[in-house]
Parts: sequence; structure tokens; C-alpha cells
Amino acid sequence: MRDFSRDTSALALNTATLGHNFDGFGAGWPPERIIEACAERGFGGIVFWRRELDNQAREIGERVRAAGMQVVGLCRTPYIVGSGAPEQLDEARETIDVAANLGAPVLTIVTGGTEPETKGILESQKILAERVAVLSDHAADMGVKLALEPLNPMFGGNRTVLMTVRDAVRVCNWVGTANVGVAVDAYHVWWDTTIAESLREAGGERIYGFHLCDWLEETGDMLLDRGMMGDGVADLKGLRAAVEAAGYCGPCEVEVFSSRDWWQRDPGEVLDTIVERFRTVC
Amino acid sequence: MRDFSRDTSALALNTATLGHNFDGFGAGWPPERIIEACAERGFGGIVFWRRELDNQAREIGERVRAAGMQVVGLCRTPYIVGSGAPEQLDEARETIDVAANLGAPVLTIVTGGTEPETKGILESQKILAERVAVLSDHAADMGVKLALEPLNPMFGGNRTVLMTVRDAVRVCNWVGTANVGVAVDAYHVWWDTTIAESLREAGGERIYGFHLCDWLEETGDMLLDRGMMGDGVADLKGLRAAVEAAGYCGPCEVEVFSSRDWWQRDPGEVLDTIVERFRTVC
Repeated sequence: MRDFSRDTSALALNTATLGHNFDGFGAGWPPERIIEACAERGFGGIVFWRRELDNQAREIGERVRAAGMQVVGLCRTPYIVGSGAPEQLDEARETIDVAANLGAPVLTIVTGGTEPETKGILESQKILAERVAVLSDHAADMGVKLALEPLNPMFGGNRTVLMTVRDAVRVCNWVGTANVGVAVDAYHVWWDTTIAESLREAGGERIYGFHLCDWLEETGDMLLDRGMMGDGVADLKGLRAAVEAAGYCGPCEVEVFSSRDWWQRDPGEVLDTIVERFRTVC
Repeated sequence: MRDFSRDTSALALNTATLGHNFDGFGAGWPPERIIEACAERGFGGIVFWRRELDNQAREIGERVRAAGMQVVGLCRTPYIVGSGAPEQLDEARETIDVAANLGAPVLTIVTGGTEPETKGILESQKILAERVAVLSDHAADMGVKLALEPLNPMFGGNRTVLMTVRDAVRVCNWVGTANVGVAVDAYHVWWDTTIAESLREAGGERIYGFHLCDWLEETGDMLLDRGMMGDGVADLKGLRAAVEAAGYCGPCEVEVFSSRDWWQRDPGEVLDTIVERFRTVC
């Protein structure tokens, strides 16, 4: 396993951790200030959300690289399966273009939920594979990779049809193109005792991202009550060992949705805490 | 697959569906009235919660049988792993005695969460196996079987260390006694695309219960927003096919926690709806 105790070059901030991508939360730091604060603290990269980029994706990407960091990724496409999804496929294509402008190598896909008039998730996964295949052609033209992110099964119904890494790998296999892989998020997969096997099956070259946060013992809200690394019950070192054993050696992206706690704090304090926890408990 | 379109003898009511086991909800029907209403509608059995039995478990059990139905089970032990669990093991033993008095063949175990000072779930599963082994000796003396119920992974942390049927089977194997099996609840496992394989591994003789409800596309509350069968996205017929293919031919227990909808309605209407949905969509 990589030793992070003195090396934060693999550490990336997902800007959702500062709250400003959700109405009414966060300190409202603009991208410029986030870039500066991350660079000062030795972060290796940043992941942005589309809404904070305005039409400045190219400029913001250049600013990140000028500060000595990488743009690690862009969050995320609109839902591409489930109720209302067909109307959003054009927007999904546009998001690929934004990722390319930003210089983000990876665009995350949160799939959306079960297709209308169907039950369960398998039929929706097949429709998902067809739509991702189409998107992946455009993404390949733009030099962008697509990361299918399985979500905790509590997000089934309206947010996801991928509940496990195994689900995501299955859809990758169905899509069959070279630029579609999997994002592994601790919050979503920490509970899966078959994860090491699924990650080996995926292989390091298809793992496009590794996201860090923690699962709080008392999780009070499905969406916005994630824990800072070390504050919960997830075995983060064990999970990273499994991800790295599968061959992944890329960035570790901290993504803490926390309306009750971390989004109420000064972003400087949040970033300092991330660095300390990354070195000690991840 | 069994044909339920004209036969409700396998249909059982979990009384939580009427809401009265939670403070402030439900119409407050006493057990006698529930028994009568279920018998009138052709239910084959009832599952009770301990709090509604007072010290009348024996009398209530006899009344169910006198009405031509079975007591299918008792919900449930207190948590036996996780914070505060060790202090509750005596109560778990007492609950086995209540199940025996009621004439309930099965007592459900919701495990509780991750053990203090540990991470993830595997270590807690081992401690769970040790404690269940001790309880199972007493349960065997009392003629009661223990059903380990995996919960949706969203209940990790403080409510469960069993997230899948596979997890539950693993712990059954570790316990290694003849009277410990698995309860399969549609709400908790509907999303699992490996479920058929896990159920085959369990085998029909270790499946101690099958619980019906539905997963709503828009689930607004983790605990109390379950759907009535047919109103959600779970593939209930597919799940029953998998359970029966594994060899299960026991009761199907309807358990709908629904503070916003079904707990607000007249229990007679709820029971009528259950019968109709059981015949048509399960």
C-alpha cells in the first residue's frame, strides 16, 4: 500500500465537501480561492461540479494546473436512466464537453433509477449500458473517460441502478468500450464484504476513481450526513488496500456531503482536517 | 411457483403494518381484533411484536390457533452487537421465552451495528456469531428457531452488520447450529442482483421467513416509508421465484412500515389491500 503519512500528492478535494454546490450551504468560496487553498496545503488535485464552473471550465482547469495540481475529474452527468432521463441525454453529452474543456480525465456517472414500467434493476442496467455506449463514443472523441459510480442501495428507486462494484463491472462489460470504468466511493461500498473480489474482477485499469469519506454510526440523513474520514465505522485502510491490490494507484478524492457539520465550518479548517485525516486514517 | 391468485393460506400479517407498535401511529387495535380481522379475510398467520403481547403471549398464541391461523413468528430480539448490545443479551434470552410461550416457531434477529472500537462489519459478524451460538442453545431448548435478517445497507452503523443474504449465510455457517437461519425481506434485498445465488447457497431449509412490502421509487425516510406491494420498483414475483427455487415454501409475511400513508388508514382497508395485492402482484 502507498504510504500517505508524509505524501499528500494523491489527495484530491471534491469541492462538494465545501458545501457551496448545494443551495444554502457552504462559505461560497469561488474556484480561484479553493485552488489556492488546496495548493497551499499540498493537495494533488481537485474534482469540480459543473454548476460552479459557469462557462469558465477551460480557465479554471488551467488555473489548477498552473498551481501545480491536476483536475482529477468532473461531477457529474444528469441521470441517464429512470423517470425523465431520456430528456437529459443531450445534457449528458454537453457535460462530456465541459469535462474536456476543464481537462478532466474522468466524468462521473450517477445513473438514475429504475426505468418506468419496469421492476428491479437488471432491465434498467441493460438500458443504461446502451445509453452509456452511445455516450462513450462521444467521450472517446473528446478524450474523456466515463466512471460508473455504484451508490449505496438506499439510493435505489430514483438515483441509481448500480448498487455494487459488481453491478458496475457488469455494465462495463456490456458496454464493452475502452473508456468506461468504475468509481469506488467508500460511503457507497464500505459495507460490501465481497468488494475485494469485485475490485479484482474490475482490475486496476478499470477503476477510474476512489472516493473517501466515512459512514457515521448514527447516519441521520441519507444524502447529506456523511462523516469525515476517521469519524465513522468504515474500514478505510482496508478498502484502500483492496483498491490498490486490484491495481489502482490514482488519486483519492475526498467527498463529504455534510450539511449538519462540515458545511457549517470554515473551509480552511475543513481542508486542514482532510489533510490530517488523509495522512493518519486513510 | 405457488399460485396465490386464489389461495391466501400462505399470507401472514406482520402487525407492524398497522402502525400501533410505534408510538403515535396506528389505530390501536388490540391483538384480539387483529386476529379476528385477519381470520375473516383468509390470512394464514400473524407475526407479532413483543411490545403488544404484554404478559399474554400464551393466550394470544392460542387465540390465533383457535381462529384457524398460525403464529408465524415474533419480532424481535434487541440488538446483540454494536454499542450497548452486551447489556441486552439477557433481554434477548427473555425474548426467546416469549416466542416459545406464543408458540412462534421463529424469532427474528436484527443484529445491531458495528462493535465499538472496530471498523467495517466482518469483525462484528464474528462477535455476532459467538453470541448467536450461545442464544441458539437456549432457543433449541425452547423449540424456537432464530432468523438472522439482513437489512438494507443503509442501516449499517447502528442497526445491522448483515447487509445481504450472503452475509447472513456466512454467519449461519459460523454459528453452525441447526436452529439458526435467514429471514429474507424484500425491502432489504430487492436491489441485490446476486440474491438467487445466495438463496440457493442458503437452501430452503435455512430460509426461515420471507417478508413482503415494496421499495418506493421516491423513498423519503429510511425507516418508515416502505411501500405496499405493487406501489414500488421491487421485482416481487422475481424475488419470490428465487426464494421458492431455493426450496422455501413457507409463509409470506407482509411488513409495511409506512408512517405517511398506510399507518394513517383504517386497518380494515389496509388488510383488504394486502389481500388483493398478495393475490395479484406478489
